Amino acid sequence: MKKEGILFIVSAPSGAGKTSLCNELIDIFPDMRHSVSYTTRSPRPGERDGVDYFFVSQQEFQGKIEAGEFAEWAEVHGNLYGTAKKTLEEFRSRGLHVILDIDCQGARRLKSVYDDAVYVFILPPDFPELRRRLEGRMSDSPEAIERRLRVAEEEILEASWYDYCIVNDEFPQAVEKLKSVVIAEKCRTRRLASTLSGIFAS
Amino acid sequence: MKKEGILFIVSAPSGAGKTSLCNELIDIFPDMRHSVSYTTRSPRPGERDGVDYFFVSQQEFQGKIEAGEFAEWAEVHGNLYGTAKKTLEEFRSRGLHVILDIDCQGARRLKSVYDDAVYVFILPPDFPELRRRLEGRMSDSPEAIERRLRVAEEEILEASWYDYCIVNDEFPQAVEKLKSVVIAEKCRTRRLASTLSGIFAS
Repeated sequence: MKKEGILFIVSAPSGAGKTSLCNELIDIFPDMRHSVSYTTRSPRPGERDGVDYFFVSQQEFQGKIEAGEFAEWAEVHGNLYGTAKKTLEEFRSRGLHVILDIDCQGARRLKSVYDDAVYVFILPPDFPELRRRLEGRMSDSPEAIERRLRVAEEEILEASWYDYCIVNDEFPQAVEKLKSVVIAEKCRTRRLASTLSGIFAS
Repeated sequence: MKKEGILFIVSAPSGAGKTSLCNELIDIFPDMRHSVSYTTRSPRPGERDGVDYFFVSQQEFQGKIEAGEFAEWAEVHGNLYGTAKKTLEEFRSRGLHVILDIDCQGARRLKSVYDDAVYVFILPPDFPELRRRLEGRMSDSPEAIERRLRVAEEEILEASWYDYCIVNDEFPQAVEKLKSVVIAEKCRTRRLASTLSGIFAS
């Protein structure tokens, strides 16, 4: 029996650097896949359908809700986001690890279903820096930035129930920390039953 | 208030490579210290008093037991080994992380006192390889090797209650895994209370 892959769930306030960090992990670990979420929001410049998100219409999204296809779904900043069960289960059953970046609302809902997953929260070093990053991204209006900052404050209060918190102060160090979480979790005794029985058998 | 250092407890059957792995960690992390244990056994060639162990007489050891100086002590292969509370507490209170390599008996006793410590078990890839390593070490008689192998079998059954298990197949990979456990544990949310409150305060 092939060992089931681990599910890593990563949340962060907008601008904390979650997307870049998750992309680095995919590059580092050949046995890790990104779980592509569904969304009704419009693609940002450079975002590709099927890679960053599956961009779908409101109607299509509703159909999937009704068909029970989502492990979780939620409304964030007025748009719908959802994680398809199929995406997660297909990878994991093939022994591949899955990284899913998702807001706190979504993570909380997944926690009740996937209690064996690893929950990681990425933190900005501080609020002034978070504001600088959001402003530098040039993709949001000043009002949207203010809204994101207010949401960030609320989200950081959620950090306390995550397994790990990584402060994204210097990017390479944050990558090293996230990478270490993955390697360490692969060494958790409770995930190693088959390895241990192989050693006993010898 | 300075954050308390983390206690890492590492066990392994003789020959699994525990000592070399722990030494690597000390080299990698400037904020990590080796907890030097007390023992009544004779030094092996190259071992230094106060570095590898504090080598003490049976009588001295008994005195320390009576004075309540040990967090744990045990008899292994006919010799006494003990961990002084003072060693652990002085380092940790200064925010330094401590690595303690100790047999399963000792680790089990520490578990009841230091429940917040991180317990890591190092495994040999298999028994034939463990025998080769013990024979290659040339420090034990054939009888001692057989005894160590029997003890190893019993010890590996203990692996199941440790937090992490690392198979020391290829040394550099095992170092990477142990290093990752340390980095990941430093990112555990429950150890980060002061970091999180700093971010809230900004």
